[in-house]
Order: sequence, then structure tokens, then C-alpha cells
Amino acid sequence: MKLLEERIARDGIVKEGNVLKVDSFLNHQMDTALFSALGEEWARLFADAPINKILTIEASGIGIACVAAQHFGVPVVFAKKSQSINLDGAMYSSKIESFTHKRVYDVIVSKKFLGPEDHVLIIDDFLANGCAVLGLIDIIKAAGATLEGVGIAVEKGFQQGGKKLREMGVRVESLAIVDAMDAESGAITFREQPHQS
Amino acid sequence: MKLLEERIARDGIVKEGNVLKVDSFLNHQMDTALFSALGEEWARLFADAPINKILTIEASGIGIACVAAQHFGVPVVFAKKSQSINLDGAMYSSKIESFTHKRVYDVIVSKKFLGPEDHVLIIDDFLANGCAVLGLIDIIKAAGATLEGVGIAVEKGFQQGGKKLREMGVRVESLAIVDAMDAESGAITFREQPHQS
Repeated sequence: MKLLEERIARDGIVKEGNVLKVDSFLNHQMDTALFSALGEEWARLFADAPINKILTIEASGIGIACVAAQHFGVPVVFAKKSQSINLDGAMYSSKIESFTHKRVYDVIVSKKFLGPEDHVLIIDDFLANGCAVLGLIDIIKAAGATLEGVGIAVEKGFQQGGKKLREMGVRVESLAIVDAMDAESGAITFREQPHQS
Repeated sequence: MKLLEERIARDGIVKEGNVLKVDSFLNHQMDTALFSALGEEWARLFADAPINKILTIEASGIGIACVAAQHFGVPVVFAKKSQSINLDGAMYSSKIESFTHKRVYDVIVSKKFLGPEDHVLIIDDFLANGCAVLGLIDIIKAAGATLEGVGIAVEKGFQQGGKKLREMGVRVESLAIVDAMDAESGAITFREQPHQS
């Protein structure tokens, strides 16, 4: 999506170690007019899918998912990061490995809010190794719900998450795919996606 | 606000120990059409305030703040809960005591996104003892920014947070104030707020 690519090129900061900082508009300070444009694009791209629920994960996915959900007219459920292993039977849970924080944590979703009747779009801000999305897919499977697809704002195309998901047959719409970054020059190379606006 | 009170009366669940569960529409599954109505009401109530930024705290405040922000046309910044005490000078931080999780944690906001030029509205889903909001006010003060007010979805009026803030001279607009709850009958008593819609 050109609008997001242009914003990343303008306000994103490339750091050593393939780090892309987009915290001025995406995941610390948040531009909700941009989020609404992302939501509109996902609604166009997934117009043929019978989505009735959006699933995301705390924390930075929540804002994008909530603003985007207004274009779908469906509720959002967010998976909570849990410190506790005392999960009663009322929760679906999955383990997610965080490379940023170098630890494994449990994420949980109440069984009340996800079931076999649900057709789910996962939305998240970033896709890198794919661990968070794979954890959410586990939860969708445990609930007997149907995964309709995954909407990502920024995919790091040089990491394996997007490839893994697409090879599993998951429909992934990342609105910007960064295929290469250069910390010295600040240059960012985006993958061509002619079907997007 | 009648719309929110009616929703709490219909879908909220009162449990022993003054617990009010609103996780089917407010803080686990999220009704973004309701959030938009809350945002519209806050925009009306704070129409005279020169708000240029909304501040919230992860996780459950983020969705409400982002949807509400669309009615103000301003960016949202969310304070991050930090596990780390290795904060470099680039962050404002404050300590918040969580009664739910019975521990103290640090919350941080990047200095890049809050400064003396900012007129801030704090938005959060719940106000009980007020610790989270007081922590955010600390951060606003440290940034030299101006606090314009606090928008809360559900205030527990029988706890001290709202009273404390109002006595400090803070303008608090809680769109539903629960003054009493009865776990046996499920009855919820709301405070009259004639200036709200």
C-alpha cells in the first residue's frame, strides 16, 4: 500500500541489526487516520471473506485492530499476555516466544469470545518470525473457528514469518513488505504488491 | 452517558468482591461502535479544551483511546509497561501499583512524543483507585505538558480514584460511574450525571 510505504520511508528509522523503528506513528505514538486507511484497504482486500471477528494481541496490535474493525463492523478480541500458568478451563492458551524480550510467554483468550461459528481475521502491527501470529492461529484452531486471513501493517520480508504462513496456505495481506534495509544510508526496499492500492 | 450505562446494565456481570466484568464489550472483546460513541461524547464534553494529544496505558486503554482519537483528530501515545529498570534518559517513567496483579511496575513514555507544547487528554477504560491515571499525570508533569482532563469509560465511584483526582482539580469525565453493585441481585446503581448525554 503506497500510503504506508511512503510513511515508512518518511518517518521510519533504520537502525543497525535490521531494526526498523516506526514508533512515531505505528506502535508507541499512533496515527489513527493512517490506521483507518489501513483498515479500509484490508476491508477492500478481504471483501469476499465472511469475517465476523478480528483477533489481535496486546499491546501494539490493539489500536490498529480497533480502528480497522470499524471498516468491517465486527468486534475485536485481543489475546492477553499472561504471567500466570494457573489458567482455568475457561481460556484458550498458546505459548509465544518473543525474540525482542528473549522469553516465552502464555497468551490467553476467553472461550466465551471465540468459537466454531467465528470467521477470524488476525490483525497485527508487525510480522517478523511469525511467532505471535502462529500462536493466535493455535488459539483459533483450538476454538474450532475458521481463519480467514492475516492483515499485517509492516512485514519484514527478509525474516521467515510471512513465507512460513503463505506456505501453510494462509492468506496474508501485509500492507508494506520490507525486503531490505540499509542502516547506513537509511534506504528501505519494499516488495512490489500490484494488487494493493 | 445513558448508552454506556444501559450496556453495562445489560451485559456487565457483577461478581463477589465488587468485581464488575465488562469483558464482552469493553476490555477483552471490544465493541468499536460503542467506543466511537464514547469518543464522540468526550469530544463534546471537552470541546473547549485545546487537546492536541491523547495519552493512555497498555493494554485495554489502547483500543478505546485510538477509536476516540478519531473524534479529536489528534495522535495517541500509550505508556508501556516495562519489565526493565534499565531505562535510558530517552524515556519518562513512573511507578504504578497494580492491585489486580499485586505488584509495582514501571510505565514509560518516550520523550520524543510528549513535551511542553502538548495539551493532553488521558483516556482509560477503568478508574478505581486511580493509580494508573496518577502515574500518567506524573509523566505529563515530567514532560512539562498540560493536563486538560481525564476521560474514563467506567468509574468505580465507591473507590477513591475519582474523588482523589477531582480534589486535585483534575477535570474527570467518566461516562458511567458505578456507585454501588449487588452481586446477589446483579443490580448496579449509577451516579446521576445530567450534563452527559
